[in-house]
Amino acid sequence: MADDMISLDYGFCTPAVLGEQHGLELAEFEQRVRRAQQWMGGLRQEGKLGFLDLPSQDQSDLAPIMEQAERLRGLADTLVVLGIGGSALGTTAVDMALAGTLRNVAPRPEGAMRVLVADNPEPRSFGQLLDGLDLQRTAFNVISKSGSTAETMSQFLVVRELLEQKLGAEQAVARLVFTTDPELGNLRLIARDEPVACLEVPRNVGGRYSVLSAVGLLPLACAGHDLGELLAGAAEMTQRVLRPGLADNLAAVFAALCVGYSERGRNVLVMMPYASDLFGLAQWFAQLWAESLGKARSLDGELVHRGQTPVAAVGTTDQHSQLQLYMEGPQDKLVVFILPEDYQRVITIPRRYQQIESLAYLGGQTLCRLAQAEAAATAAALAGGGRPSMTLRLPAVNARCLGQVLLMLEAATVIAGGMLGVDPLDQPGVEMSKRLTYGLMGRRGFEDERRQMEGFAAAPRFVV
Amino acid sequence: MADDMISLDYGFCTPAVLGEQHGLELAEFEQRVRRAQQWMGGLRQEGKLGFLDLPSQDQSDLAPIMEQAERLRGLADTLVVLGIGGSALGTTAVDMALAGTLRNVAPRPEGAMRVLVADNPEPRSFGQLLDGLDLQRTAFNVISKSGSTAETMSQFLVVRELLEQKLGAEQAVARLVFTTDPELGNLRLIARDEPVACLEVPRNVGGRYSVLSAVGLLPLACAGHDLGELLAGAAEMTQRVLRPGLADNLAAVFAALCVGYSERGRNVLVMMPYASDLFGLAQWFAQLWAESLGKARSLDGELVHRGQTPVAAVGTTDQHSQLQLYMEGPQDKLVVFILPEDYQRVITIPRRYQQIESLAYLGGQTLCRLAQAEAAATAAALAGGGRPSMTLRLPAVNARCLGQVLLMLEAATVIAGGMLGVDPLDQPGVEMSKRLTYGLMGRRGFEDERRQMEGFAAAPRFVV
Repeated sequence: MADDMISLDYGFCTPAVLGEQHGLELAEFEQRVRRAQQWMGGLRQEGKLGFLDLPSQDQSDLAPIMEQAERLRGLADTLVVLGIGGSALGTTAVDMALAGTLRNVAPRPEGAMRVLVADNPEPRSFGQLLDGLDLQRTAFNVISKSGSTAETMSQFLVVRELLEQKLGAEQAVARLVFTTDPELGNLRLIARDEPVACLEVPRNVGGRYSVLSAVGLLPLACAGHDLGELLAGAAEMTQRVLRPGLADNLAAVFAALCVGYSERGRNVLVMMPYASDLFGLAQWFAQLWAESLGKARSLDGELVHRGQTPVAAVGTTDQHSQLQLYMEGPQDKLVVFILPEDYQRVITIPRRYQQIESLAYLGGQTLCRLAQAEAAATAAALAGGGRPSMTLRLPAVNARCLGQVLLMLEAATVIAGGMLGVDPLDQPGVEMSKRLTYGLMGRRGFEDERRQMEGFAAAPRFVV
Repeated sequence: MADDMISLDYGFCTPAVLGEQHGLELAEFEQRVRRAQQWMGGLRQEGKLGFLDLPSQDQSDLAPIMEQAERLRGLADTLVVLGIGGSALGTTAVDMALAGTLRNVAPRPEGAMRVLVADNPEPRSFGQLLDGLDLQRTAFNVISKSGSTAETMSQFLVVRELLEQKLGAEQAVARLVFTTDPELGNLRLIARDEPVACLEVPRNVGGRYSVLSAVGLLPLACAGHDLGELLAGAAEMTQRVLRPGLADNLAAVFAALCVGYSERGRNVLVMMPYASDLFGLAQWFAQLWAESLGKARSLDGELVHRGQTPVAAVGTTDQHSQLQLYMEGPQDKLVVFILPEDYQRVITIPRRYQQIESLAYLGGQTLCRLAQAEAAATAAALAGGGRPSMTLRLPAVNARCLGQVLLMLEAATVIAGGMLGVDPLDQPGVEMSKRLTYGLMGRRGFEDERRQMEGFAAAPRFVV
């Protein structure tokens, strides 16, 4: 089994390799990590960490999801996910990893639905998506815990009308699944009057921790991915992330090093998988990390303005875009490489133009070897400049390893929250922008916000 | 004409709106900007800023590009770009903006080729791309100034062999265009023996400034975009960015505010267009800014380790991912919104479920209005917390406005380099990683680097 487990190599964070000035002694964080883990244990006992229970969902838990997936596959070949943030990023992360960046350009395998994630309501991209659909063969999964997300609900209203116009009310309803709160919210209200199938987001699972709930599992089942393997991977990681201390606990080591470096001025965390298919995973992590740890106040109510800025990058591509900055810019970054040990695809570089010395060395080698050599060389070059990195190794890019990665990073985020003394489960900072939007859109009860925005509009303008 | 020009609104950077603590008086930068502009004028006279001359390319300059585009359209319906970094990002930025995020999922208009950019040699994504091609109907544009870029040349070797196997040597050569140095490098060597069509990257145009050279123009012409409008937009901006001082010069204002804030601890620059189609533009800018300004040494040779970290985001999507951090995290960010004033698509939200109060306000409004309200509300909410932003307004998302944006940001980057005292045209920091890769891949002459990497591999391991 060990061969199927992801591992985290943090050699390039240690004083042994990086020197005293830039290296971190992991052991120094042992006590702080243990306190954070105790706090996390408390949250768990209070029932607040529902994401830790998702990997142990059994056949009967999954039955409603599988039933809907089967029903949708029977009537459609395309699933459009209407959701944003935590309702979209997990699905994209796993589907892109397993079905590839070109998954919707090439046809999917027999029986697998095409999954399009519509996570932006602006009319250019959403309009183009709608234009390309054969509504007769398309189903829609509307995902919003509250049912009041302005973006998702606007898109739903457009789609609902369109479906009824083209296919009639009954067929419209048949093509919908809502994933929402077990009892409350607008989508439940609607489903009381119209018989739309509903799946639940557990109360104690927040959006950014919801990929292994119905939020991610329905679209991933429609796409034909192996939910059993995904959950099995997450389950085998759950045991490890709950071990006390740092030993054999990837999440604790990851959290300790990120927090340690952020407190030493490295407040940018670059997540750089060496595979385009894993860019979605880096973007999923960027939400998890930013929204969980970017907080004005500590758990004690003190103003702290914490939060490491996550950056999603891709190797080798971004060696030709961001690496110059990472190598020579300020000492403000920690890089996490994600490296598949098996790309599950062999492409050998032919021996051609062997008379050209600066091409000859490539012939006979594989593209896998090139990517791995570039990743190793980049990590070494960074280390040579006192710039730390970790490498998360995946034995393969498959559902099982992805389950491990997702669960590990979720747990690491909560541990990091505990170490930093901030609440990794809330997001109070997005309220103001929502309220001002309601004001501008004329929602009742937000007249003050409207006046506030009118004040900005009337201010002197500075435009060039 | 003014109605067709992009504008930059920097009200949310001013002390008048943001207060003394967080606002910046633009006028304070006037002298420093003028000195940077004089230095830039010197570079221009030395012939080093070739990108400023690209907008004035005329029909005869473009003839070789248009000829190749026409030839390729005659024999293929798909163009694969083999290039990385500056050889890929500009094409993706413009093609995504004009043809949409789903441009390769939906069919392109009659006569327009599908353009796939293969900017990562790792075998998963590149293999998936190759699998989906009908080689008989596919052409390949290999872009490398030096002809020795390991990633691009590896991909080329694979493609060259495949084409010859499937179609024979003559047809293989017909399906290729090289975009490279006017005389030197491996691609020129190859083209001496095999009659491959070649286009030139001007000597004085570096990769990240090359989008308006043959590097970007050939694929964009194949995709059917209006090169005349793109260059006309860039040309009308060229006049403005060369004006001395800050008045009526978007590039100078952009550079002054970014540099000013970076020196006041805001060393993260978020580029956040409110349209998914403009995400490629934000990624193109991320290379331009990171690689140009992320420098260890000043022009005087002093160790300075400068460089603001660019982050590519998308509105409204990332309001549900990154906004919490931007609102409540450290005061270390400057946000640049890019906002289309016309989305060129009207989608009205139907009045449905009007009995549900928290949905009723949406009915009858457009998705364009929702996106613009969210952008305005987000900027205002940030400003309320003393967090600065600028808004770059595009009258429309078309070739003309994109030409203006590209040229403006290129000029702003050079001005910022002058203000910071670093060379915005070189990238010395990526050499080490390349040399270590050569060592690992067994290239002759890199035996020392090989031993260095073997040293790392033999070091004690820190793995969990």
